[in-house]
Amino acid sequence: MRIIKDSTPSADGFRMPAEYEKHEGCIMIFPERSDSWQYGGYAARKAFVKVAEAIAGSEKVTVCASGRQYDNARSMLSERIRVVEMSSNDAWARDYCPTFVKNDRGEIRGIDWGFNAWGGLFDGLYFPWDQDNQMARKLCDLMNQDVYDKRDFILEGGSIHVDGQGTCLVTESCLLSKGRNPELDRVEIEKILCDYLNVSKILWLPSGIYGDETNEHVDNICAFTAPGEVVLAWTEDVTDVQYDMSKACLEYLESATDAKGRSIRVHKLPLPKPVTMTAQECDGLDACWGEATRTPGERLAASYVNFYIANHSIVMPGFGDPSDEKAKMILSDLFPNREVIQIYARDILIGGGNIHCITQQIPTSGRDMEWVKAPKEAHPLVQSRSD
Amino acid sequence: MRIIKDSTPSADGFRMPAEYEKHEGCIMIFPERSDSWQYGGYAARKAFVKVAEAIAGSEKVTVCASGRQYDNARSMLSERIRVVEMSSNDAWARDYCPTFVKNDRGEIRGIDWGFNAWGGLFDGLYFPWDQDNQMARKLCDLMNQDVYDKRDFILEGGSIHVDGQGTCLVTESCLLSKGRNPELDRVEIEKILCDYLNVSKILWLPSGIYGDETNEHVDNICAFTAPGEVVLAWTEDVTDVQYDMSKACLEYLESATDAKGRSIRVHKLPLPKPVTMTAQECDGLDACWGEATRTPGERLAASYVNFYIANHSIVMPGFGDPSDEKAKMILSDLFPNREVIQIYARDILIGGGNIHCITQQIPTSGRDMEWVKAPKEAHPLVQSRSD
Repeated sequence: MRIIKDSTPSADGFRMPAEYEKHEGCIMIFPERSDSWQYGGYAARKAFVKVAEAIAGSEKVTVCASGRQYDNARSMLSERIRVVEMSSNDAWARDYCPTFVKNDRGEIRGIDWGFNAWGGLFDGLYFPWDQDNQMARKLCDLMNQDVYDKRDFILEGGSIHVDGQGTCLVTESCLLSKGRNPELDRVEIEKILCDYLNVSKILWLPSGIYGDETNEHVDNICAFTAPGEVVLAWTEDVTDVQYDMSKACLEYLESATDAKGRSIRVHKLPLPKPVTMTAQECDGLDACWGEATRTPGERLAASYVNFYIANHSIVMPGFGDPSDEKAKMILSDLFPNREVIQIYARDILIGGGNIHCITQQIPTSGRDMEWVKAPKEAHPLVQSRSD
Repeated sequence: MRIIKDSTPSADGFRMPAEYEKHEGCIMIFPERSDSWQYGGYAARKAFVKVAEAIAGSEKVTVCASGRQYDNARSMLSERIRVVEMSSNDAWARDYCPTFVKNDRGEIRGIDWGFNAWGGLFDGLYFPWDQDNQMARKLCDLMNQDVYDKRDFILEGGSIHVDGQGTCLVTESCLLSKGRNPELDRVEIEKILCDYLNVSKILWLPSGIYGDETNEHVDNICAFTAPGEVVLAWTEDVTDVQYDMSKACLEYLESATDAKGRSIRVHKLPLPKPVTMTAQECDGLDACWGEATRTPGERLAASYVNFYIANHSIVMPGFGDPSDEKAKMILSDLFPNREVIQIYARDILIGGGNIHCITQQIPTSGRDMEWVKAPKEAHPLVQSRSD
């Protein structure tokens, strides 16, 4: 593994592919942290296994497990899934596994961003975060891929979404937060994103989902479903604190254009009714930093936008809510060539995120760009929308 | 990774290649155990790094490091070497990393033997050994290779040597020891070796090197250098306790034939003068099971036979002994197409083994059988002796 410090993906001809481009596989982390996952993580592990198995129907899945949980992971996961031993502080593969970039020759490299548990000593969620922060580089080493060292810039994978055609979606609440890169202004942050993701336009949504303790990651409120098209988490309930937040995002998106100059088609994805912590669930969480990590009645940042786009499926959360079916139908319409698999995700949500947060895709190596442009008929199992 | 319980390599057409056949790479483990490696392992790690870098000149090297030592391993090893996180109880890759077998189509599988720290509760060297015993399977999973489950048979990689043509060398002292498979007799052990290594003849040397705490592994006293040819650790000093041991092996080999019916050409490799522990070295070793692991004046099982055959080099130990140069010349003559690299190995020897013990080769995948048969001229860097 070569560690690249003196260049950027953009300068070297690498770009971050969109999640709907073809994957080689997916990385996940086996959960065990007792202040994140209730009652020792038994329910969370079952939910993670369901997600991993759903994705493994489309692409190779690697699950990283600590030495303590390795045997357990190996026995809970089917043999088509690879389990590797790797230490971490928690299980958010999206946020600290590598962001992968790819060039026209189909070569893959990783980006190793800095990670400080969503805000470091300012408003981070746990301490320490050293093992999480090592994971991107460890994975690139494991995969024999060169890696860009950008640890001096704090960024989580869940705080960015790209369309693969020059546009990146972020939230102001997260990227301009005081716990990440307080010495950088918006223009400086844009330059780093453009240099490392090889994009030319950053779309700044004002906020994310109410109560999202990641300082409102974009991946919980808005996601590209195709170039020029997004889904946006939405509520019609004007009394909900989320209403104004989603509305401000909608208005921003309706007035914006992407890197190609296209206006953006926004598909509203309903939110479930507020999901709140029970006292019984709170009793099953260890304290962190001397405090309870959840309180009874606390609203969780539930959103159907937090789905994963696998090669042949969409793996999305369900909450036992009347909107589960409607959200599933909307995603089925938007991804007509992928099977939508809905997994009951309350046990993931309690940890503070959802299916997109616990997954990180690896793009295919090799030249497969034509795949993105191919007409729908060319490959019945593959999403091939384009504007 | 598929775990194969109901078949054997032999039944499936797989065989263990000889070490002098072409390698894909080599596995090593980063040392840190404070009752094995003096003064916290600083000197041992430097010696291991020299071995890894020497081998990396010929083939891909993967070094497994614990979570505690990962950063240190990554910074001590060059970027051409891959470092992966993996727990172990100690650093003997030969003895508990997979034995690899290969079929005519060039497919590779692993064998996961049982490991009990060289004798379990009878005369094993430490407790517990659970993490060592997990490594073979973990590595096969990491490498996406299917693995034969043979954990019900205790065997270390250092206790076998094969010629790749149907012959396996072992020692009676080790394979018939009471701490390994006391319920099996010699005939039953031979059957397992034949089934799993795909050999048809087992050569049973009576013993190994005096004081070798592995119950005298064969890889410290005798090794194939080509089909029909071995080196044997030898002393001319008739007063040395080793003299009768080596002489008995010589007499056995001179009267034996291999699987192809050939007599065996024995090249004597001189032993260094006895290497003994100093009081200062003993002071730097933590106790194990409440006892000192070494005592001042204790003779270590030093032997030049404990070398590794890399694709383009022989990596062999040196002891600062007058025989270092002679042993190097003998191996240079026996491997004329490989560079012989001698590494001062006292800091490895103190741990209880040597260069062969801390390495495990991975054969190349793909059909390269012609490589073994090719005349010497075909590839100047490659060993291609045949009878």
